[in-house]
Amino acid sequence: MATATLGELATLVGGRVIGDPDLQVRRLASLDEAAEGDITFVSHKRYLAKLSQVRASAVILSHPVEGLAIAQVICANPYLAFAKVLTHLQVRRPEPQGIMAGARVAASAVIGEGVTVHPGCVVGERVSIGRGTILYPGVVLYEGVTVGEDCTLHANVVVREDCRIGNRVIIQPSAIIGSDGFGYAPDGSSYFKIPQVGIVVLEDDVEIGSATCVDRAALGVTRIKRGAKIDNLVQIGHNCVIGEDTVMVSQVGISGSTTVGRHCTFGGQSATAGHLKVGDNVTIGGRGGVTRDVEPNQVLSGLPVMPHKEWLKAQMCVPKLPEMRKEITSLRQKLEDLEKSLKER
Amino acid sequence: MATATLGELATLVGGRVIGDPDLQVRRLASLDEAAEGDITFVSHKRYLAKLSQVRASAVILSHPVEGLAIAQVICANPYLAFAKVLTHLQVRRPEPQGIMAGARVAASAVIGEGVTVHPGCVVGERVSIGRGTILYPGVVLYEGVTVGEDCTLHANVVVREDCRIGNRVIIQPSAIIGSDGFGYAPDGSSYFKIPQVGIVVLEDDVEIGSATCVDRAALGVTRIKRGAKIDNLVQIGHNCVIGEDTVMVSQVGISGSTTVGRHCTFGGQSATAGHLKVGDNVTIGGRGGVTRDVEPNQVLSGLPVMPHKEWLKAQMCVPKLPEMRKEITSLRQKLEDLEKSLKER
Amino acid sequence: MATATLGELATLVGGRVIGDPDLQVRRLASLDEAAEGDITFVSHKRYLAKLSQVRASAVILSHPVEGLAIAQVICANPYLAFAKVLTHLQVRRPEPQGIMAGARVAASAVIGEGVTVHPGCVVGERVSIGRGTILYPGVVLYEGVTVGEDCTLHANVVVREDCRIGNRVIIQPSAIIGSDGFGYAPDGSSYFKIPQVGIVVLEDDVEIGSATCVDRAALGVTRIKRGAKIDNLVQIGHNCVIGEDTVMVSQVGISGSTTVGRHCTFGGQSATAGHLKVGDNVTIGGRGGVTRDVEPNQVLSGLPVMPHKEWLKAQMCVPKLPEMRKEITSLRQKLEDLEKSLKER
Repeated sequence: MATATLGELATLVGGRVIGDPDLQVRRLASLDEAAEGDITFVSHKRYLAKLSQVRASAVILSHPVEGLAIAQVICANPYLAFAKVLTHLQVRRPEPQGIMAGARVAASAVIGEGVTVHPGCVVGERVSIGRGTILYPGVVLYEGVTVGEDCTLHANVVVREDCRIGNRVIIQPSAIIGSDGFGYAPDGSSYFKIPQVGIVVLEDDVEIGSATCVDRAALGVTRIKRGAKIDNLVQIGHNCVIGEDTVMVSQVGISGSTTVGRHCTFGGQSATAGHLKVGDNVTIGGRGGVTRDVEPNQVLSGLPVMPHKEWLKAQMCVPKLPEMRKEITSLRQKLEDLEKSLKER
Repeated sequence: MATATLGELATLVGGRVIGDPDLQVRRLASLDEAAEGDITFVSHKRYLAKLSQVRASAVILSHPVEGLAIAQVICANPYLAFAKVLTHLQVRRPEPQGIMAGARVAASAVIGEGVTVHPGCVVGERVSIGRGTILYPGVVLYEGVTVGEDCTLHANVVVREDCRIGNRVIIQPSAIIGSDGFGYAPDGSSYFKIPQVGIVVLEDDVEIGSATCVDRAALGVTRIKRGAKIDNLVQIGHNCVIGEDTVMVSQVGISGSTTVGRHCTFGGQSATAGHLKVGDNVTIGGRGGVTRDVEPNQVLSGLPVMPHKEWLKAQMCVPKLPEMRKEITSLRQKLEDLEKSLKER
Repeated sequence: MATATLGELATLVGGRVIGDPDLQVRRLASLDEAAEGDITFVSHKRYLAKLSQVRASAVILSHPVEGLAIAQVICANPYLAFAKVLTHLQVRRPEPQGIMAGARVAASAVIGEGVTVHPGCVVGERVSIGRGTILYPGVVLYEGVTVGEDCTLHANVVVREDCRIGNRVIIQPSAIIGSDGFGYAPDGSSYFKIPQVGIVVLEDDVEIGSATCVDRAALGVTRIKRGAKIDNLVQIGHNCVIGEDTVMVSQVGISGSTTVGRHCTFGGQSATAGHLKVGDNVTIGGRGGVTRDVEPNQVLSGLPVMPHKEWLKAQMCVPKLPEMRKEITSLRQKLEDLEKSLKER
C-alpha cells in the first residue's frame, strides 16, 4: 500500500484535477465501499447518480460534474485509469528473496538478478530465468526451459522441457505449459503414441489462467503471441497459434493446429475444431463452436457459428418449435380439406 | 474400519431394528457385493427384488419386508442412512502428525492443535490453521490465508493470499482458491491488467472439487456460502456469490459478478453469463446457459435457458427441422398451385 | 537423439527402401521444415505435390513416386510409420536416477529397479512402484497406491489412496487420479457427504491428460481399460468404466456410473449423463450430449445426440428458423384469405 496525491495520479492517467492536486489518497475503492481518504471511479454514466452519496475523497470521471463536493480527476478513459491507479496504490511486487531454502535448482541453471524461487520449486538442468522473475512454491521447470524477466509463475505451475516464456508473463496457479499434445496413430484397433517433440512459446505480456493447458507441438511450436490473455481451465491444443492481444475466457477449447488471429475474443466454453484459421478481430460468443475457417472482423455465435444477430433471432425460435410443428400439420390438414372440398364442388 | 451393532446403527440413523440388535456388522456394501458380516441398503423399491439373493447380514430399508431371512434396520431415509453408516464404519480421520519433516511453515504462521501438515506443503507468513485440519502433500497457502477447524486440503491445493476458509471445508486435489479474476481494461488494442486485490471466502462445510478454480474478487469478496458443494473443473469467476447448499456439477462455468441463490443445482457443463442474479431453488439442466436473471424455484435448460419441459419438447423437434423446411416449401407450392387453379376456373 | 539407416527404419515400420538402405538419417521433420539429413513423410496424397521442393534426404510413402530425387521408404501406413520413426530417432527415456534428494518416500514403500523419483515427490506408506517408472517433481502418491512398470507420471500428478495404475501408463502434469466422487445424500435442505471408499484402476497403456480428473468410486472401482487415451481437462465421474482403446478429447465430461464401450471416440466438450451404457465403436461428435443408452457402431452428434448426418442437416436449418416462422405465418394468412374468398364466392 502507498499514498499518492491527486496531481500524481492525474499525471499517471493523463488527466487533470478539479480540486486540490495535493490531496492525498491511499486506496481505490468501489463507489459503494469507498470511505474518506479513498479515490473511486465512475466508468459508466449509469453510475453517476451514486455520486451524491459517495463518501470517497476523490473520483475519477470522464467529464466534470458540476457541484460535486469532492475532488475530481478527469481523464479520457476512467476504466483504464481505475486499473492504473489501483496498480499504483495497491500492488507491490514482493522484495526479491533469491533461491529460498527448500527450492531445488539444478547446477546448470542460469538465474538472473532479483529472482525469487520459493520453497518446493524444482528448476531443471539448463533452465534460464530472467531477472526479477518470481516462482511461487511448487513451480516445476523441466530441463531446458527459459523464462524471461519480471515474470510471475504462481504456485504449482508446470513448464515442461524446452518451452520458452517471454518477459512480464503471468501464469496463474497450476497452469500446465508444454504437456504432450494429443496425438496417436491408429495401429489396428489400438493407438500408437506420436511423440510430441515440439515446444510451447509464450511471448511477452501473455497471461495464462489457473489449470489452463497449453500443449507442446508434435513438431515445431505452439505459440501464444504477445499480450494474449487466457483465462482458467482453457485448452490450447498442439501446434496452435494464438494471435496478439487475443482474449479467451474460461473453459475455451482450441483444437490442434488452429491459428487464431490478433485481437480476437472467445467467450466462455467456446471452442474450435482443429486445423482452422480464425481471422483478426473476431468475437466468438459464449459456447460458440467454430467448425470452419472464419474471416476477420466478425461477431459469431452458435454451433456451428453464424452471425451473432442471426443466432439471437434463431435461438428465440427454438422454444417455438413444437408450436411450429403443430402449425405445419394443421396447415397441411386445412389445405387438404380445402383441396378436397374444391374437388367435391 | 470398525464394527458396530445394528442397535448402534439404528440409533445413528434414527431407525429401529427388526432382528437381533446386538448383531455386529463391519462393512457397508452394495446389494451385489455384500457378504456375510456386511450391512447393505435399499434406497429404491426397484432394487427390493434383489433382496432374495443378498448375502449380507443386514439391510437398511424404509419399510419392513416380511419373511426376510436377514436383520432389517428400518428408517425414514435409507439413502441418508447409507451415507451415515458408511461414514461410521469406514471413514477414519488419520491421526494428527503435526508439522511433518519436509513441510515449510513460516515462523509467523499460527497452527492449531491436532493439525497435520504433510511434506511438501508451504505455509506462508501470517497464515492461521484451525485445530484438526489436514494439509496433504504439496498444499501451498500464500501469506495471510486463514483455514478453519477440521478442514481437509488435499494434495497440491493452492490458496492464494488472504483468502479465508471456514470450518469442515474439504478441498479436493489441485483446486485453486484465490487466483486472479480475469479482468483487463482495454488500452488501445492491448489490455491493461486490473489488479485483483479482493479475496475468496469459503464458508463452513463447503466442498470444492479437483482442479476447480475460484477466482479472487477484483475489489471485495468472491464468496461460496455455507454448505455449497462444487464438483471438479468448475470455474467460479471473480466477485461471484454462490448460495448456501447450492450444488454445481463438474465443468460448470459461472462468469464474474454473478450471484446464485441458495439450494440451487447446476448440471454438468452449465454456465451463466456475468453480472446476473439466479434465485433460490433453481435447477439448471446439464449444459444449460443462463443469459438473464432467473427467478427462484424454476427448472431450466437450453441455451438460453427456458423451462426444462419446454426445452425437452423443443429439442425433440430439432431432428425434424429439415423435414419441417421441406414441408413448408411443399405447402407453399400447393397453395400457389391451388390459387392458380382457382384463378383459372 | 540418434541416427538410423533407412534399412533399419524400413525394418522398424515393415516397409522397403527405394534408394540406398545404408543412408543415415538423424531427424524426422515435417515436409516444410525437413533439411538434408532428415527423413520426412507423406500421409495423405494431397501433400504429394510438396515433394518436388522437399529438402529432406528421404521420405516415407505409401506408394513409390517415380522420378523422385530422394530415397523412399514404402510402407502400408506412413502415418503410423512416422510415429514409430519419430519415437526411434527422437525419444530417449531418461537414465534412471533412483530416489533423488528432496523426494520423500515412506519406509514401507516398495520401489522397483530403475525407478526415478524426482525432488518434491511424496510417496506414501505401502506404495508400490514397478521398475523403470519415472515420477517427475511434485508427484504425490497417497498410501497404498500401486504403480506398474515403465510408467511416466509427470509433475504434480496426484494419485489418491489405494488406486492402482498398470504398466506403461502415461499421466500428464497435474492430473488427479482418485479424488472423491461427487456424492451427497439430501439431509433436509443440506447435503450429507457420501464417503467415497472405492478406488480408481488405470489399466495398461492408458494415457491421461493434464488436469484431467478421474474420480474414485463410491463403493467399488472406477476403471479406465487397457489402451484408453484421455486428453486434458476431462472429467470421469465415480464408478465409470471406460472401454479399451477408447479416445476422449479435451474437456469431455462423463457423469458417474456410466459405462463406455471399447474403441469409442468422444469429441471435445462432449458429455454423457450418468448411469448410461454406450456401446463399442461409438463416435460422439464435439460437444455431443448423450442422455440415453447408445447402441454400438454409431456416429452421433447434438444435444441430445442423434445420427451425425441428421444433426448436420438439422443444424443447417437453425439459422433459417426465423424465416421458417415468418413463412408459416404467411402461409396461414394466405390460406385464411383463400378460405374466406372461397366462402364469399
